[in-house]
Amino acid sequence: MDQLKATLKAAAARYNKLLPHHDQARDLVFLAHAKLAKEASYAHYGDFSGRPSVAYHVFGSGTSVSRPVRSSIYLADPALFSKNYATLCSKLKSGPKDWGDAEITLANSVVYTAVMAVACCFDLWQRGSRKTPGTVFEILMASLLQQMLPKASFSKHIPLAALVDADDASPGDRESEEMSEAAADGDDRGSVSTDLVIRATPASALGVVIPLKITTRERIVQPFAHQRILDSAFGAGVFQSLLVCISETQLDENTRSVKQVCVPGTVKLFQKYLAPVAGLYYCDIPQRYDAADMQRVIPVKSVGHLFCDVLGLLDIQSASSS
Amino acid sequence: MDQLKATLKAAAARYNKLLPHHDQARDLVFLAHAKLAKEASYAHYGDFSGRPSVAYHVFGSGTSVSRPVRSSIYLADPALFSKNYATLCSKLKSGPKDWGDAEITLANSVVYTAVMAVACCFDLWQRGSRKTPGTVFEILMASLLQQMLPKASFSKHIPLAALVDADDASPGDRESEEMSEAAADGDDRGSVSTDLVIRATPASALGVVIPLKITTRERIVQPFAHQRILDSAFGAGVFQSLLVCISETQLDENTRSVKQVCVPGTVKLFQKYLAPVAGLYYCDIPQRYDAADMQRVIPVKSVGHLFCDVLGLLDIQSASSS
Repeated sequence: MDQLKATLKAAAARYNKLLPHHDQARDLVFLAHAKLAKEASYAHYGDFSGRPSVAYHVFGSGTSVSRPVRSSIYLADPALFSKNYATLCSKLKSGPKDWGDAEITLANSVVYTAVMAVACCFDLWQRGSRKTPGTVFEILMASLLQQMLPKASFSKHIPLAALVDADDASPGDRESEEMSEAAADGDDRGSVSTDLVIRATPASALGVVIPLKITTRERIVQPFAHQRILDSAFGAGVFQSLLVCISETQLDENTRSVKQVCVPGTVKLFQKYLAPVAGLYYCDIPQRYDAADMQRVIPVKSVGHLFCDVLGLLDIQSASSS
Repeated sequence: MDQLKATLKAAAARYNKLLPHHDQARDLVFLAHAKLAKEASYAHYGDFSGRPSVAYHVFGSGTSVSRPVRSSIYLADPALFSKNYATLCSKLKSGPKDWGDAEITLANSVVYTAVMAVACCFDLWQRGSRKTPGTVFEILMASLLQQMLPKASFSKHIPLAALVDADDASPGDRESEEMSEAAADGDDRGSVSTDLVIRATPASALGVVIPLKITTRERIVQPFAHQRILDSAFGAGVFQSLLVCISETQLDENTRSVKQVCVPGTVKLFQKYLAPVAGLYYCDIPQRYDAADMQRVIPVKSVGHLFCDVLGLLDIQSASSS
């Protein structure tokens, strides 16, 4: 894990400085994938009893068991994963405008495999780092989107708290920010900063916000609350959020099955009464979300579609803002 | 702990059925307080290095240490706590309209002692039950508010998810609710239901919502998001939220000191751009929140004031709605 953590540190350092970090992100992903292939078992755990049922594997090492992995999407063979990763990057570079089912499926499986490989390594060998897989998800998606949009302006976060500090400066504010930073241990960041933000050019007023979450749980409220704040502060339509998630699952040890943890009522409620996000994207769309009553309220699509939609939104925006 | 858990179960069962539960809540609190007094050590741990500095104790048992307890507010002496608890109940029954500093201080110390006693018992002897102290906080405050408002209409939650289910009924909805209930393990409840709701009478359209949180962390977004949803769904002013919190602290083992975990920028942001809540109440107001720049944006008061404010809001509301 030392090499993995060092590679992650290098990727994060470059990402935090907004430097190109594609090579570091790729190294990280392949290190994790190879480590699992070499050192962990990988076998069927149980099914989600949906219609149809969905099979899940887990990685194992000693007494540790990873989170559930959807075996129909995860590319366990290192050679195949490597080949498909390269294909995805090349297809992103030439632009995803004419993508069909094959490209969408390829993009989903590569992103899913990459993110889950790192997450499962941490599950098996570094249990305490609860937030790290989410950070890796963000770093990886930024590196892939940069392949597709080499000229776009990426920023890590919209620091929403600055909205109030700007018009409410007081002598105590420096102290307060230090306090909250030091004390909240990163939790405050989650509440008050968006995730990845992309603009067509640095001068564009309009932007796409991409919150990335592995297993949303109660944090599902954040992207909708952030969208509401962005609408209130900048006007509706200036920022559009595309919410990208993965792995809404839970092992059930008693029945040796897997649950897909869905909160359709909550998502509908937030979409209707908090603020509408432009779409909800998954590599492994939970069955309950891929249903007509959900689709009427919020577009639910695959991560393959995300690449097309980001390109579309930024094209329209750069045209309308120039 | 078995007796404590049985008493909690009895109190929760009655509370969940909206039956009077004051005796059960009181029994629970005094069991916990007595258990700590008898079986745990209670000694100074360290200070929060504010201006002025604030001293904190901890309870200890074997190698376990409780969360920090503000020793200037916690009533460690069982006889004094018992006497003050009875005094508070009697003063609530006669109405807190003419309360001065003495009554406010009394109310703060009784509520703080009651909630922290139960929370510290769980810290020492039942570490896994992370959510139980928050439930106890709600049960206790409801029982005290019922002493003050015997004729008011209490309900446990506004089931916000029902807002979308009502106008979007589909064959899958029953299934979805079961899924979310079963799978989210109570987390969904936190996202989509408010805490305690009080109306002057069952027929009142207007209501006071009282979210209760021990150590808010990133869950601070919830009451503001809920207020926004209530404003969107029912119109502004129909429901007013009074956010009641306790214990925004964290032990720092390295320096043997206590941090007050504050996110003033976040609170200001949510208050201005998400939805305004009517007030933020603490028994142990963190220093950073008791500052002029915060008070300009959101009223920050003690839990003693909460009782007066609830009475005031419901009086006004029952007058205006009749």
